[in-house]
Amino acid sequence: MSHPVHRTQVRVRYVEVDRLGQLHSSRFAVFMEMARTEMLRDAGMTYRDLEARGVFLVVARLGLMFHRPIRYDDMVTLEARVERATSARIDHGYRFVVEGQTAAEGRTTLACVDRDGSMQRMPDDLLALLGID
Amino acid sequence: MSHPVHRTQVRVRYVEVDRLGQLHSSRFAVFMEMARTEMLRDAGMTYRDLEARGVFLVVARLGLMFHRPIRYDDMVTLEARVERATSARIDHGYRFVVEGQTAAEGRTTLACVDRDGSMQRMPDDLLALLGID
Amino acid sequence: MSHPVHRTQVRVRYVEVDRLGQLHSSRFAVFMEMARTEMLRDAGMTYRDLEARGVFLVVARLGLMFHRPIRYDDMVTLEARVERATSARIDHGYRFVVEGQTAAEGRTTLACVDRDGSMQRMPDDLLALLGID
Amino acid sequence: MSHPVHRTQVRVRYVEVDRLGQLHSSRFAVFMEMARTEMLRDAGMTYRDLEARGVFLVVARLGLMFHRPIRYDDMVTLEARVERATSARIDHGYRFVVEGQTAAEGRTTLACVDRDGSMQRMPDDLLALLGID
Repeated sequence: MSHPVHRTQVRVRYVEVDRLGQLHSSRFAVFMEMARTEMLRDAGMTYRDLEARGVFLVVARLGLMFHRPIRYDDMVTLEARVERATSARIDHGYRFVVEGQTAAEGRTTLACVDRDGSMQRMPDDLLALLGID
Repeated sequence: MSHPVHRTQVRVRYVEVDRLGQLHSSRFAVFMEMARTEMLRDAGMTYRDLEARGVFLVVARLGLMFHRPIRYDDMVTLEARVERATSARIDHGYRFVVEGQTAAEGRTTLACVDRDGSMQRMPDDLLALLGID
Repeated sequence: MSHPVHRTQVRVRYVEVDRLGQLHSSRFAVFMEMARTEMLRDAGMTYRDLEARGVFLVVARLGLMFHRPIRYDDMVTLEARVERATSARIDHGYRFVVEGQTAAEGRTTLACVDRDGSMQRMPDDLLALLGID
Repeated sequence: MSHPVHRTQVRVRYVEVDRLGQLHSSRFAVFMEMARTEMLRDAGMTYRDLEARGVFLVVARLGLMFHRPIRYDDMVTLEARVERATSARIDHGYRFVVEGQTAAEGRTTLACVDRDGSMQRMPDDLLALLGID
């Protein structure tokens, strides 16, 4: 099953760029998190509710390639896609697009854990949403 | 030439942990940057001076693996090492250690650019410090 | 002249709440900055352009009162209003509203400076926008 | 009873300055929090332990005056002092000093609450430390 690309728009805040005028490398993890949050919301779930049910998706791996600077007040299109999912892990791929050009690319692996950090199987509705049965 | 491991101590701030009580994934890029800054300082240079001379080291790639949570008020030992260097790029490897245990590992590739973002050769004193002639 | 209230919607990000589950006190300054940015944009100017013209509005004073917690994923309505303006300073008042309730109130005084930090008179178009001639 | 001034040294991180090259206004709340944390630690308590005991000190009011820019890599001396304390509130005053000059001044009022956010009396050992019986 191939997963569709989800798009979220984010405008770069003043505080998010460094003295070179560029979106700081640490901010991309925040943007990827927002992309996942909105992708889930558009699919009818919220991450807040998942956590309230004791389901935590924590970042186990993260990778980024930076191609061109993103600047203050730029409107960034965050493209995110589920690339692979099992009952306890999800891999996402991301593209950061500004004015039609790819500024950066990212990947994350999330692990599903309980409140104490132990791995757990994702709940059925999340699995269904990921196309896993 | 083999590069030595440099160690920096950082205490985790309240603002840096999320509502799960864990150092947020976006904070690791900041800690890696601090580790590089202090490694340079201990070698007798400052990154502030480098930038004043028109030398900018920007992050081109970044990777992280998260093994166990880092918590509020933890004292983290940031281990950083130059793994490979050319006249325009430096690869660093990192370990985040809390109470003797590896909590996370990271890698970055820095590119040397000028104020306009064009690749440039690193200055001789920086190359000498990296063991490149 | 009485200035109208401007409203901006912001959703609270995961990274922005602390381990008590509350929007951290440091984040409110960022939200007030966003409110000012969007108020200016809706009036037909952008702060990015102002800076490109050598006009910098820096925070000289800042005050905040916190009434009730703001939480992860809350949609916050930022109400901002120019309370007083001279040719070199602007006072703004803010209300942070969640589900109809005032969660916090703030005030800032901005000073208009040039690139070197010296006070300067605001440009005529900005003064006109503020109702000053 | 007059409370002594406590001093904490913090070096400004690259990510903490904005594209004007100045410590961003939102960062001062973080530095004030660090000053309080270290003041408590030097008095023999840790805020982490207080929270583990169900004692939360949340910011109820915050004020800042900015006098001169603080820059990347500056070593800042955070001066903090308890200005007034009751059994449920603490007022702190702060000075941000760089190279002997006051760059900014701040004030906070903390309220003591339980995990649900209800006001509570501070524990006896904290009251004793504040000179209240």
